[in-house]
Amino acid sequence: MENYKQFVVALSAAAAAGLVTIVFVLRWVLYYREGLAWDGGLAEFNWHPVLHLAGFIFLNGAAIIVFRLPWTWQCSKVTMKFIHAGLNLAAFICAIISSVAVFDFHNAAKIPNMYSLHSWVGLVAISLFCLQIVLSIGIFLVPFTPVSWRAALMPLHVFVGHSLFGSTIAVALMGITEKLIFGLSDPKYKDSPPEAVFVNAMGVLVVAYGVAILWISTRPSWKRPNDQVLHVLNSSAGAEVKTKMGPSLSRLSD
Amino acid sequence: MENYKQFVVALSAAAAAGLVTIVFVLRWVLYYREGLAWDGGLAEFNWHPVLHLAGFIFLNGAAIIVFRLPWTWQCSKVTMKFIHAGLNLAAFICAIISSVAVFDFHNAAKIPNMYSLHSWVGLVAISLFCLQIVLSIGIFLVPFTPVSWRAALMPLHVFVGHSLFGSTIAVALMGITEKLIFGLSDPKYKDSPPEAVFVNAMGVLVVAYGVAILWISTRPSWKRPNDQVLHVLNSSAGAEVKTKMGPSLSRLSD
Repeated sequence: MENYKQFVVALSAAAAAGLVTIVFVLRWVLYYREGLAWDGGLAEFNWHPVLHLAGFIFLNGAAIIVFRLPWTWQCSKVTMKFIHAGLNLAAFICAIISSVAVFDFHNAAKIPNMYSLHSWVGLVAISLFCLQIVLSIGIFLVPFTPVSWRAALMPLHVFVGHSLFGSTIAVALMGITEKLIFGLSDPKYKDSPPEAVFVNAMGVLVVAYGVAILWISTRPSWKRPNDQVLHVLNSSAGAEVKTKMGPSLSRLSD
Repeated sequence: MENYKQFVVALSAAAAAGLVTIVFVLRWVLYYREGLAWDGGLAEFNWHPVLHLAGFIFLNGAAIIVFRLPWTWQCSKVTMKFIHAGLNLAAFICAIISSVAVFDFHNAAKIPNMYSLHSWVGLVAISLFCLQIVLSIGIFLVPFTPVSWRAALMPLHVFVGHSLFGSTIAVALMGITEKLIFGLSDPKYKDSPPEAVFVNAMGVLVVAYGVAILWISTRPSWKRPNDQVLHVLNSSAGAEVKTKMGPSLSRLSD
């Protein structure tokens, strides 16, 4: 792998930001808030940030970079695809349970659902995430789709994946903002009590995790070796070479 | 240009989302809110969303894709660099005036500054945006930096630019959330008055603008023709060709 040391630094930064975020969100709900339960109250609401951050965002980020870990390059591509799909499916399940928790809490407390920008962008992101999983299983995982279709749709798959990852981080930041405004009353959010500073820091960590994951996943030289060849051939300047070498190249990505 | 029709569709979507966002934010402050003034009151605060959305984000997005407009490919690269830098500088000036407006308003109303996650991420983003402008002028615009340095630093420049663009959109979404919670009292945000629905829709439009800009700016086949060649040669699989052709290739990006 080219620039292996830089890769290890970036991966360590992502892992550190992600794992510290998980510790922070657990400390937030267990120490500053009402803990975790499934009772329709505030302790049930707390599953919402925990599962969104420690589940959805963290697992989605791991799924995005799993192909780039050089220690997995000895595994077959199809094995890695199953791991990628499995992590994203686990992330999606966390997102669903996280959403159920907040709907339950709202209904019990007679708070309207789906009124905020946080909920609008969140619902769109989760719906598109579900669509992305279903279509991607049909296109990239089951062995029936023509290889040429896979090659043509891969850039869209990657872009949608990155966009949804970024969007769910933005959704988390809006959710944190809402919760700190509504949850802190004496002292208020604007008085910067320790909880506010702690949770703001967690928000910054989530952004750092997102940036590190996207850095790792957008360096062409850190792709799986076969995918690097395809990356070059898929760009315009490589079109001539591709034409000469024929469609058999597409099989590399299979 | 490859896939010219798709490019025009993506560009039209970005332009439509961006321009409708500008109309929306002006209608928000002029119709639903207190209008625009520079008096330390709410009308001065309103410059904050107007300049952040219609100035900072819109101009930054335009700067990001300006190299990709095929109608500019007859202009010299250095002319386009000045336009790119000029748009980003204008965006930065909007961000600064936007920040001054909110500090003025907070100070007059005795509201603390810099307590929210919105302000934390916003300050980091604006500071890094300033650093990016200063360093980029030194590295890419003035003719003293070695061409090899420019080539090596360009991927970082692009990644930081994209990350800051995404971050400022996330900052805007947090700001919208704050303003709708604090600004709507009877009816409240949770009661979904027309203003809340209108501004939520504006938030979705900002996300759509961001996604369209990032789609345009990450398609390798829509780069300026010379940059496409460099893109292939900078990737690992092209390293051998690059070595054979020597450092003179780097001059293509100049």
